[in-house]
Amino acid sequence: MTGTATASRTSPTDASLTDRLALSARCADGVTGTAAFFDWLAERQLHHAQRTERIPFDALDQWGFDPGTGDLGHVSGRFFSVQGLRVRSDFGAVPEWSQPIISQPEVGILGIAVREIGGVLHFLMQAKSEPGNVNGVQLSPTVQATRSNYTRVHGGSPVPYLDVFRTPEPGRVLADVLQSEQGSWFLRKRNRNMVVEAGAGLEAGEDFCWLTLGQLNALLRCENLVNMDARTVLSCLPDWDRVTGPGRAVHSGREIRSWLTGRRVTHEVVTERLPLRAVPGWHRTADAISHDEGRFFSIVAVHVGSRSREVPSWTQPLLRPHGRGVAALLVKRVDGVLHALMQARVEPGFADTVELGPTVQCTPANHAHLAAADRPAHLDLVLGADRARVLFDTVLSEEGGRFDHAQTRYLIISVDDRDAVEESAAFRWLSAGQLEDLLKYSGHVNVEARTLVAALRTVR
Amino acid sequence: MTGTATASRTSPTDASLTDRLALSARCADGVTGTAAFFDWLAERQLHHAQRTERIPFDALDQWGFDPGTGDLGHVSGRFFSVQGLRVRSDFGAVPEWSQPIISQPEVGILGIAVREIGGVLHFLMQAKSEPGNVNGVQLSPTVQATRSNYTRVHGGSPVPYLDVFRTPEPGRVLADVLQSEQGSWFLRKRNRNMVVEAGAGLEAGEDFCWLTLGQLNALLRCENLVNMDARTVLSCLPDWDRVTGPGRAVHSGREIRSWLTGRRVTHEVVTERLPLRAVPGWHRTADAISHDEGRFFSIVAVHVGSRSREVPSWTQPLLRPHGRGVAALLVKRVDGVLHALMQARVEPGFADTVELGPTVQCTPANHAHLAAADRPAHLDLVLGADRARVLFDTVLSEEGGRFDHAQTRYLIISVDDRDAVEESAAFRWLSAGQLEDLLKYSGHVNVEARTLVAALRTVR
Repeated sequence: MTGTATASRTSPTDASLTDRLALSARCADGVTGTAAFFDWLAERQLHHAQRTERIPFDALDQWGFDPGTGDLGHVSGRFFSVQGLRVRSDFGAVPEWSQPIISQPEVGILGIAVREIGGVLHFLMQAKSEPGNVNGVQLSPTVQATRSNYTRVHGGSPVPYLDVFRTPEPGRVLADVLQSEQGSWFLRKRNRNMVVEAGAGLEAGEDFCWLTLGQLNALLRCENLVNMDARTVLSCLPDWDRVTGPGRAVHSGREIRSWLTGRRVTHEVVTERLPLRAVPGWHRTADAISHDEGRFFSIVAVHVGSRSREVPSWTQPLLRPHGRGVAALLVKRVDGVLHALMQARVEPGFADTVELGPTVQCTPANHAHLAAADRPAHLDLVLGADRARVLFDTVLSEEGGRFDHAQTRYLIISVDDRDAVEESAAFRWLSAGQLEDLLKYSGHVNVEARTLVAALRTVR
Repeated sequence: MTGTATASRTSPTDASLTDRLALSARCADGVTGTAAFFDWLAERQLHHAQRTERIPFDALDQWGFDPGTGDLGHVSGRFFSVQGLRVRSDFGAVPEWSQPIISQPEVGILGIAVREIGGVLHFLMQAKSEPGNVNGVQLSPTVQATRSNYTRVHGGSPVPYLDVFRTPEPGRVLADVLQSEQGSWFLRKRNRNMVVEAGAGLEAGEDFCWLTLGQLNALLRCENLVNMDARTVLSCLPDWDRVTGPGRAVHSGREIRSWLTGRRVTHEVVTERLPLRAVPGWHRTADAISHDEGRFFSIVAVHVGSRSREVPSWTQPLLRPHGRGVAALLVKRVDGVLHALMQARVEPGFADTVELGPTVQCTPANHAHLAAADRPAHLDLVLGADRARVLFDTVLSEEGGRFDHAQTRYLIISVDDRDAVEESAAFRWLSAGQLEDLLKYSGHVNVEARTLVAALRTVR
C-alpha cells in the first residue's frame, strides 16, 4: 500500500475530512492491491453468475396486473409498481405526453462504510449482481437496500452492515442526503445516500472489499464496473480537492439559486397518474408494454436464477430502455476555477419539477425524428469533440435492479472561450464548489449529473 | 432620517449586502418618519375599509361544490380549492386522520422591492386589506400575487410593481427561494419569496411606503401589523448580524442535515386525497364544514365588500381556525453563539414530509382533550416563563386571503443551562447561521419558524 499514514482522527470536521479524503484519493493502491481486486471481482463474478431470461407477463410469480387499472405490481403492495403518467408542460418541444412510469415511494438506503486502515480511508465496496446488468456483478455500495429489503418483506436474509447506517453516531456521518433518481423512469423515487465511518472492528465479508478513493476513481473509468448507486453516493462526499474560493465563480451562489427558483416557477409541469391500461400511445403484448413507434423504453418481465442472493430465484418486471443514453458535461476553467455547464432539466418524476442535469442528457435515438432545432443543445459539439478535449468517456450502467441493460455513455469535454458556448435560459456555468453546495441538499442535482460530478473529481 | 450614508454599491455581493442590511437595520427612521408612517397607515385603513360578512355556501358566486366529490372550488378551476386528505403516519400520537385541506398548486410571488435612498436600503411595503384580517389593512410585501392574480384570471387590474420581480437582473436579487406555507391547512402550497433591488426611478404609489429595516423590525412588535407574507420574505434575507463562525455551533452543518434526512425517512407519512364529501369526522352545514367535536378549524364562506381592490366586491371560502395558535422558540447562547431549539415537524401538506418548525407550535385548545404526555413538549415552559426571559411576545396574523381571523402568539424565550432543556429525537439546537443556510434552500424551515427567525433578528 502506498500513501503516507496520518494519525487517526475521531471527529471528522470539514477541514480534516477533506484532508483525509484527499489522502485517500492520492493512494492509487490500498490494503487490497489492484491486481488482487480484479482477481476477487472475477471470482465473485463466477460465484454470483445469474441467468436472467425474458418471460411473458403471465409467467410472473407474485407480480400481476391490477384488474381495474392495469397497473403492474407485487401482491404485497411493496417493492415497486408500474403505473401510467400524463404530463402537461409549457416547457420543451412536446407539450403533452403519457407514459408508463415506475412508482417506488419507499426511500431506500445507499450506504458506503469507510474505515481508516493504516491511516488511510478505505471504502467498503460490494460485488453485487443485478438482473438487468449487462455483465452480472458490478461494484456497489456496502448497503443497497429498499425498505422492503431491509424490513424483509420477501423473507430473505438480513442485509449485511445495515446497522452501520440505521443508527450512525452523528460525528461519524460523512454524507447523508436524499437524492432523486431517473425522473423519466421513476415517479418521485429517492434514496438516502450515506457515507458513514465505521469503527476499527468492521471487517469485509466475502462479497466485500476495501478500496481507497484513488482506486475507486481509477475504476470509474472501467466500462460498466462502478454501479449507479455507488457513483451517486460518491458524488455526495465533500469535494476533497475544492479549488473554488468565495466570489470566484462566474455567478454568485445567490444568482444560481435564484436562476433555479425561476426555472422552477416559470414553467408549469402538471403530472397526473393514469391507469397503466389507459396510457395513450403505448400498447401491451404478452411480454412487453411498448411505445407504438418503438421509442423510449419497454416494460418487460424476467426470470432470474441465482445461487447466492437473498432468495434463490425470482421473477420481476424491468424497464428496458431502447438505445444507449448520452450524458455529457462541458467544462472550462474561468480564472483558474473549474466550471461545468449545467442544464435546468424538467423530468416528470422529479419531486420539484426541475433539477440540474448534465449539459447534454438524452438518448439520441429518441430524438432522431425531431427537427434539427428540437434536437438537444450541444449534442453535436459533444459527439464531435477532438479526443484531446475528452477528459472522460466511459459507458456505465444504470440501476440493474430496475432497468434492463440500461447503459449511458458519460463524457466530460473541455471547452474554452474559442468554442463560444453561451449560456441560455436553461443553462448556467456553475463552479465545482457550487455543485458541491447544492449536493448537500436534496433534489438539486440529478442522478446523471451526480455520476459526472464523481467523474469530474477524477480528472482535474 | 438618521444613520450614516454610505456610497451606493451596484453589485450586492454577500459581504457588502450584509453591511448594507446592517446599516438599514440600525436606522430607526428613514424617508418615511415613523409618525408619518402611522398617519399614512390610518389613512389607508380608512380608504380600504372592507366589510366581510359570513354567508351560506349557496350564496357563493363563482364558487361551488363539485357534484361528484363535494370539493369546493372556483368555476375557473383556478385560485384554490378545498379538498379532503387522509393521513396515515407512524409519527406522533394520532396514527391516522382525515381533514379538509386547501389545494393551491400555483406558485405565487411574494416580493419586496428595496432601494437605496440617501445611502440606506429602504423596503417598499404595501398597505393591503385582506378579507380574513382581524383589522383590515396590514403591512404587506410590495407584491403579493398568485399566478391567477397576475395572469388576471379574474380580469382585475394589473398588479403594480410586478415587473420588478418577473424579470429581475440577477445581480439585483437579494433573496429568491420557494418556501412552504401552513402544512396543516395547505396541500403543498409554496410561494416564491423574493427581495429585489430596484433602480432609483422606483417611486412609492399611494398604497406603498418606504421603510428601513430598523423600522420594520420595530413594527414587527406591533400586534397584527406586519402580515405573514411580509414576515416570510424578511426571513429569507441574509442574516445581516450573523454571529456564528464556522465550527462554533453545537452541531456541525453536516450533523444537522443528516439528522433532518433521518427524520424524513424514519417515519412513513402517507397522504391520500379524498373527496371532500367523504372526509370522516367532519360534516357540512349550510354555512360551515366543521369537525364533529368542533376542533381544529371550519371552512366558511364570506362576502367581501371593498372599494379599492382589483374587483369591487366578491365572495370566497376561508379557513377559520378554532382558537389562537402558539409558536415559540426557545433560544440560548452557547459559547456566545445564539442557538434556537428547532423541531423536526411532520405536517401533511409539506412537499417533503418534515420541515423545521419552532420549538412549540400548536393551538393549545386542540390538545386539551389529550393526555398530559401527549401534549406538546415544552409548552408549559413557554407559557410559564418569567417576563424577564421573554424576548418577543406578539400576536400576529396568518394570511388573511385564505384564513379568517387566524392569529398566532409568537414568543421567543431565553433559556440557560439551568433550564435543562434537552434535545430529543425531534429537537436540535441550531445556530442562527445554520438557520440562515437552510433558509436559502426550499422546504427546510416552516412558515411559523420563519416568522420567528425574522423576530429573532430584532432581539439579539
